[in-house]
Amino acid sequence: MFENKDNSATSIESLGEFGLIDHLTKNFKIKQKSTVKGIGDDAAVLACDSKNEIVVTTDLLLEGVHFDLSYMPLKHLGYKAVVVNLSDVFAMNAEPSQITVSIAVSNRFPVEALEELYAGIATAATMYNVDVIGGDTTSSTRGLLISITALGTVAKGEAIYRSGAKENDLLVVSGDLGAAYMGLQILEREKEVFKVNPNSQPDLEPYSYLIERQLKPEARKDIPGLLRELGVKPTAMIDISDGLSSEILHICKSSKVGCNLYEDKIPLDPQVISTCEEFKLDSTTIALSGGEDYELLFTVKTEDFPKIKANPHLSIIGHITDENEGVHLISRAGAKIPLIARGWNALSSEE
Amino acid sequence: MFENKDNSATSIESLGEFGLIDHLTKNFKIKQKSTVKGIGDDAAVLACDSKNEIVVTTDLLLEGVHFDLSYMPLKHLGYKAVVVNLSDVFAMNAEPSQITVSIAVSNRFPVEALEELYAGIATAATMYNVDVIGGDTTSSTRGLLISITALGTVAKGEAIYRSGAKENDLLVVSGDLGAAYMGLQILEREKEVFKVNPNSQPDLEPYSYLIERQLKPEARKDIPGLLRELGVKPTAMIDISDGLSSEILHICKSSKVGCNLYEDKIPLDPQVISTCEEFKLDSTTIALSGGEDYELLFTVKTEDFPKIKANPHLSIIGHITDENEGVHLISRAGAKIPLIARGWNALSSEE
Repeated sequence: MFENKDNSATSIESLGEFGLIDHLTKNFKIKQKSTVKGIGDDAAVLACDSKNEIVVTTDLLLEGVHFDLSYMPLKHLGYKAVVVNLSDVFAMNAEPSQITVSIAVSNRFPVEALEELYAGIATAATMYNVDVIGGDTTSSTRGLLISITALGTVAKGEAIYRSGAKENDLLVVSGDLGAAYMGLQILEREKEVFKVNPNSQPDLEPYSYLIERQLKPEARKDIPGLLRELGVKPTAMIDISDGLSSEILHICKSSKVGCNLYEDKIPLDPQVISTCEEFKLDSTTIALSGGEDYELLFTVKTEDFPKIKANPHLSIIGHITDENEGVHLISRAGAKIPLIARGWNALSSEE
Repeated sequence: MFENKDNSATSIESLGEFGLIDHLTKNFKIKQKSTVKGIGDDAAVLACDSKNEIVVTTDLLLEGVHFDLSYMPLKHLGYKAVVVNLSDVFAMNAEPSQITVSIAVSNRFPVEALEELYAGIATAATMYNVDVIGGDTTSSTRGLLISITALGTVAKGEAIYRSGAKENDLLVVSGDLGAAYMGLQILEREKEVFKVNPNSQPDLEPYSYLIERQLKPEARKDIPGLLRELGVKPTAMIDISDGLSSEILHICKSSKVGCNLYEDKIPLDPQVISTCEEFKLDSTTIALSGGEDYELLFTVKTEDFPKIKANPHLSIIGHITDENEGVHLISRAGAKIPLIARGWNALSSEE
């Protein structure tokens, strides 16, 4: 009945992840007074009291799709599963407060393995000061699955949406990009080497930053506070989970604006540059499409330029234009190249 | 690394679902002021403002574990997935307001199948007046998975926990029990018949109530309002998802009390009784261990007896005792049988 044998049936791939979400959710109407913002941002926003709003965000992580346990220790996986959700909370300018953690797990995992997973979850909860308040635990027919929902609070009216960018705003990103994706390439390569020679002793020191960014990413909890200290309130904000390109397009679509992104301004760690050379990959492509950086991308008014420009945590990488100008990468050679959304999965399937 | 080959490793089965949850979450500490109640009830409770609290609950549903698409239409599945979460909200005496819906789905599903699923979700959202405010959509290597988180509100101090039952309280259940499990037996039998003879035309009319309870359950949104109208505030409450026996034990454990449950008081629909006879199953066992009834089980003070006794929606099935007396079923013949928790999965694996 549900098999995709019918030629008239539409494949999921033909819509893509974002197209599918839009298609399935377009008819949902908001009726509750307490729903300030529903589907369409890093998190939903709910009214709470006269002072605060609550943000809610949720993520699914599946073995074989989002992680590979042959090089991802379970403790790190638990930590990362929490962090990727909290990153969405920070992207709303909110402070995370609680999470629920649901897992589905097959009998192949002993209790000791789940203890490792929960130790990672507990470490992240302590580090980011959130309470684990519930969840669901069930058996799966195959593999491990983690579903986390995070809640946070933000002062009323202080939530930052994807939709607030205005023409002439500056485009700013925290940290550097592409390292988590290159860390994954290193781990995949070592996995292949290990298959051939289980006694090989790889020297991973030259890739330490890349591997840490892949296996133990952190959410930028420091950035909302830093921006408040600097007296800067972003006009739009999003976290970088699918790659810079895709996130810029989300902001531009929600804000109904265009953007010029400058290739020479994209922040790259030296290990990303050297490892891209080693793998014969273009580092700009990796930063644009690699994903899993969990940095914050935001727009600020031009008058905030002096407050931002010298900050070592922040890079100004472009500016917002009129919607009709489109969304472009301005290459080092000065060429104007249209940006295309390419998630992490799209990129890896090309290899 | 994670394979369960090590003889010293502890299998998940040896702890059981509830034991596993207790074991994995026992070290989680509550640190946020806004966390009123964390793990251990139908939903977590968060402080909101001076008037209201927020409840949060989450459930995972996996193909091959919780549902079988060979007889579960996707539209019904979407509806049921929402209902089972809202049932937990009502069990806290709260009013549901928002849900997030995450799905993982393999390529075998065409977009049209997901449209059916989301049509069921949308129907339930309309019926129960909740907003769908977010979620996550990802590919799976196999099958369909649905993770829903529900939020609701309850007046401050009005949330009802599992832990409030006191000695001499009456044990009350809404509706009737065992029908959803017997509906599953009918559907499983028809599936086997269909395999042998795809042209058979089964007469399912005698089982219509059972099948509806399995395929299109409803959460008892009427009960919290009914109790308010009757002027009754339960001392403890829980919803029946795993079977009456298991839920009574949850209340007794949380409240540190014992209980006598009277076999002759357990409400059964005539279709449950006749179909149990047909299947040579004991109807009391089915009510105790069948699960998926989504009725509400609660305790009330003895002085509320006159307000409850004649209500057609409610059955008084037992009373709370001192913890040292234990938890027992008093059989029709007057025998006192200790109640054991047996979830839905445990029951089906015995067949």
